[in-house]
Amino acid sequence: MSIIETIDSYRDLSALSPEQLKKLCDELRERIINVVLDRGGHLASSLGAVELIVGLLRVFDPGEDRIIFDVGHQTYAYKILTGRDDVFNTLRTWGGISGFPKHRESRYDHFDVGHSSTSISAGLGYAKARDLKAQNHEVVAFIGDGALLNGLALEALNNVKAADTKLIIVLNDNEWSINRKVGGMAESLARMRSHSSYRKLKAFIKEHCRNLPAGEEIESFLARGKDLIKSVLQPANFFEELDISYWGPFDGHDLEDIETVLTLARRYDKSVVVHFLTEKGRGYKPAEEDPTKFHGVSCKPDPCALKQEPKPSWSAAVCDILCERAAKDSRVVALTAAMMEGSKLNAFQHDFPARFFDVGIAEGHLLTFAAGLAAGGLRPVATIYATFLQRAMDQLVEDIAMQGHPVIVAVDRAGLVGEDGETHHGLLDVSWGRSVPGLCMMAPRDIIDLRAMFDYAFSLERPSMIRYSRGNAPFLIGNEERPSIASGKAQCLVEGTGVLLIGYGSTIPLLLEARKHCIDLGLPGPAVVDLRFLKPLDWESLVLWLPQYDHVLTVEECYASGSIGEVLSARIASEDWTLTLSTIAVPDAYIPQGTRKEQWEHCGLSIESVVNHIVNCHGPATS
Amino acid sequence: MSIIETIDSYRDLSALSPEQLKKLCDELRERIINVVLDRGGHLASSLGAVELIVGLLRVFDPGEDRIIFDVGHQTYAYKILTGRDDVFNTLRTWGGISGFPKHRESRYDHFDVGHSSTSISAGLGYAKARDLKAQNHEVVAFIGDGALLNGLALEALNNVKAADTKLIIVLNDNEWSINRKVGGMAESLARMRSHSSYRKLKAFIKEHCRNLPAGEEIESFLARGKDLIKSVLQPANFFEELDISYWGPFDGHDLEDIETVLTLARRYDKSVVVHFLTEKGRGYKPAEEDPTKFHGVSCKPDPCALKQEPKPSWSAAVCDILCERAAKDSRVVALTAAMMEGSKLNAFQHDFPARFFDVGIAEGHLLTFAAGLAAGGLRPVATIYATFLQRAMDQLVEDIAMQGHPVIVAVDRAGLVGEDGETHHGLLDVSWGRSVPGLCMMAPRDIIDLRAMFDYAFSLERPSMIRYSRGNAPFLIGNEERPSIASGKAQCLVEGTGVLLIGYGSTIPLLLEARKHCIDLGLPGPAVVDLRFLKPLDWESLVLWLPQYDHVLTVEECYASGSIGEVLSARIASEDWTLTLSTIAVPDAYIPQGTRKEQWEHCGLSIESVVNHIVNCHGPATS
Repeated sequence: MSIIETIDSYRDLSALSPEQLKKLCDELRERIINVVLDRGGHLASSLGAVELIVGLLRVFDPGEDRIIFDVGHQTYAYKILTGRDDVFNTLRTWGGISGFPKHRESRYDHFDVGHSSTSISAGLGYAKARDLKAQNHEVVAFIGDGALLNGLALEALNNVKAADTKLIIVLNDNEWSINRKVGGMAESLARMRSHSSYRKLKAFIKEHCRNLPAGEEIESFLARGKDLIKSVLQPANFFEELDISYWGPFDGHDLEDIETVLTLARRYDKSVVVHFLTEKGRGYKPAEEDPTKFHGVSCKPDPCALKQEPKPSWSAAVCDILCERAAKDSRVVALTAAMMEGSKLNAFQHDFPARFFDVGIAEGHLLTFAAGLAAGGLRPVATIYATFLQRAMDQLVEDIAMQGHPVIVAVDRAGLVGEDGETHHGLLDVSWGRSVPGLCMMAPRDIIDLRAMFDYAFSLERPSMIRYSRGNAPFLIGNEERPSIASGKAQCLVEGTGVLLIGYGSTIPLLLEARKHCIDLGLPGPAVVDLRFLKPLDWESLVLWLPQYDHVLTVEECYASGSIGEVLSARIASEDWTLTLSTIAVPDAYIPQGTRKEQWEHCGLSIESVVNHIVNCHGPATS
Repeated sequence: MSIIETIDSYRDLSALSPEQLKKLCDELRERIINVVLDRGGHLASSLGAVELIVGLLRVFDPGEDRIIFDVGHQTYAYKILTGRDDVFNTLRTWGGISGFPKHRESRYDHFDVGHSSTSISAGLGYAKARDLKAQNHEVVAFIGDGALLNGLALEALNNVKAADTKLIIVLNDNEWSINRKVGGMAESLARMRSHSSYRKLKAFIKEHCRNLPAGEEIESFLARGKDLIKSVLQPANFFEELDISYWGPFDGHDLEDIETVLTLARRYDKSVVVHFLTEKGRGYKPAEEDPTKFHGVSCKPDPCALKQEPKPSWSAAVCDILCERAAKDSRVVALTAAMMEGSKLNAFQHDFPARFFDVGIAEGHLLTFAAGLAAGGLRPVATIYATFLQRAMDQLVEDIAMQGHPVIVAVDRAGLVGEDGETHHGLLDVSWGRSVPGLCMMAPRDIIDLRAMFDYAFSLERPSMIRYSRGNAPFLIGNEERPSIASGKAQCLVEGTGVLLIGYGSTIPLLLEARKHCIDLGLPGPAVVDLRFLKPLDWESLVLWLPQYDHVLTVEECYASGSIGEVLSARIASEDWTLTLSTIAVPDAYIPQGTRKEQWEHCGLSIESVVNHIVNCHGPATS
């Protein structure tokens, strides 16, 4: 019988011997590898954090204490050990357990997360709430070195001293930030790592705290020992500059050390950063050798899909375009915020290393830096996932759009994103972006338009946004002949009777498919329009098209609230036209994890749903 | 003849003697004080930066070099000296010069700003653009100590090393962050200030660089001197931890020192932070003694306004409500991001110091910290200006709304803000907020509803947003009897014929006034509805009211794009109702500075404009 099977509750961990704990870690890794290779997920980070999580659960009680994970990539072992082993194989599936902490999934998940660098802010909140309510549990923020570089985490670190509370910050340092060579702080961490004097603390702890006494005894011991600890920790570092105690670095795979140090941190009366070194991908050879590749693993491809003609992803298609453009135009530079692999920019980085900038997890800086590059005469393309653009909206407004700097914001993963779920959808870029004066917003349905839109964006002396979804980019939808993008024109892909279907980007193939189904059903074929431009809309064409139909159905992969359907409605409501308009888009809710297909169907973005709408429009008379 | 009058261009500064420069600084202060006390503006910061700006303009040439101001509060002397003295008395007025840098106003304003902490990011962008274009001008980022604490500036600082370029960061330290006692970094700066060894650098410079040689000579001198400089700068500090050279602190009012050090920084071959200590409000006694009071000065009140019954500002009314609530409910805590005075929270801080949090200029942390406080069982009220909420939208979505934490976001200065202009309007909170699932959004027209909305928000187990504008809050508009807020109901303030006027918050008095004018003109009086709830809308009432009218006019103080008028349109367009809808709201543009009244009129938010709409609706038949 495996050790995992004997664990009913994290409390059972306290009864295990060192050998059993070691075996448990091996079993946890095996379980994680098996499920993640099947279901997809964040493999390398989760494997690296196994011992730290076992240690956390032996020293802290998540039924009382609050453990707040940052980003949430590392929580799989935690989920398995806090009562979710039997459902762990539903990871990231529709109705299954989330790849991220979710307080509605378990009372042991204390703060939901998906975007980086929130744990210290949230942890300070929990800690102050505890103080004001005169409670006495511990609060732990568990953060990786990459997440520490984001402005939000830095703002929170800067507030630790002023908050005047006790927060334990566990820094899980897998040298992610170092490998990426971004930032002075990463190098500061590297110096901490190599500083021999820190090793002395370990010796000190080994000597004095091997068998930690309990209660008041340890408190007074620590009070006496504080100067001693201080003297061992003499070199100033980033954390000490912010007046936060710093201990480390320690081996994040040595269970005994972990437990000793965390126990000490628990008894310590001040906030402290405890720095552990871990190995990303630990225990899975391919991931150890190439942790970047195994940072995120996709779920196994559908075998049917393999038979189709291989298509490039939208991200890869964008990279091709940028490389071609950069070869011709020395002003073109490309930027990412720690998403080089996800955004498939490796080729750009390889071909134009001096013109490629990875700023780390720093979305705000990404856009203001891009504004500065544009102000200085370059043509920056800032690639960013739609969900992370939410972090840089003020910079988009104040530093780019208001000033009119010709930055191209390439919005990747717009729409529903599948298995990462609620936290990672890109459903707000349309509604938020279209309220921003001075922005040109486009969405291509195929690679032909994608190229034309980048050509056009590079020709503009003002900012633009190009939105595309996760997944593969069709080479060609409809005919190659189409109004030039520079004309700002929407395109009527096919004319029709009674009903006008309007979409853009990812929903165009759906509309064309639904039209076919209508004809198969003996219904009049609806017309299909691809807007191409979300802002400004091609009103010149729309005012000609709209009054020709009895009903308009807009179909969009963004929230209905704030959608382009609403813009059209406002015009229709102001005119004497008799047509009605309805909208299929994402409802006003957080859409759960699952495959993109499941999410599309859930939101009514399916052939059946579109056809039903059309049938209802034609009414019983046509049946 | 004054010295200012002899200055045609900043280039003339080079011909002035030390005595003349000193006199110039006095004259600049006098000019600034006179205009700001009349027009309003940022007095204390601008007075503190006079010598630094004179020094900058003697060492750098803004026709070639790029000088990027942070926040922009300190630029008045710069404006006067770069050709805008003759129009300086139009400061912050409609059609006049802006209180902030504006590249469309002057070619010497290199980056527009209004929100804090962008200068290092933008400066790095300008610097990399220069490098890639093989140009050789200097780039200077001029930043205050308060702005340095924001996540965006910290992300940028963290990227200085990796950017591998040369940027001069002038830190204008008026101990603003210190006085506010926020943050470990402020204390780190304080340690730098007091560290005696830094004084040595000044001695070193005095000794070696008094008469700086030119060109290559100084380069080789610096190369030789680098180790020496290093040895003087031995203590590690925050900047050195990030591998950025740090020089200072120097007296920011000693023109000779400023010029010497800036010249040295210009010739230095690496990025460097040059730290100057300045005195906020310098040269104006009342401001020296109470710089907080004179941080921002309002323009002189309209003498007519004084005759009216004094009303509290919306901010003050909110503080009253929070104090009363906090006295009864120990879970209530209040938060601000460096806007305690602006948000009028002094009384709360005074009465409940342990339950008041000023996190500094850190809007993202503000909301995630609030989410943690709520998760820990408290009832946080995060006060934030609408324009700065743009900086924390991701935190609002991911950390508050998605998780359902009962945080109350009190959105101050929503709508048009007057003299601060483009960068400071709060016109996006409605369109951006209403796309966020799970948020309850309200807007009070008077203090009665404000109280009821806070009561309701505190009763909710989920997040809410309450939006109010700059200026004074009416005690009572309409009758005291109204549907309870807990019922989620809009209110029909007055019934009418033909036309239905719909608004909320600040536009309700305008609608009631316009109704009176219609009646005076012999037109049928339109009905007036106060929505009160922006999300969720009171559809139960609206579907009864709307079909009774021929025309609906929505009037809102937010962008038309994404407005509530569009939500109503979408419903109207989907129904068979015959009514038409039109909208008065802020057009899709950046609205220039001026009085709020001027801005309202510019946007059609005037009695005349509303009445004209109504007249047009009734058409010639009623005339």
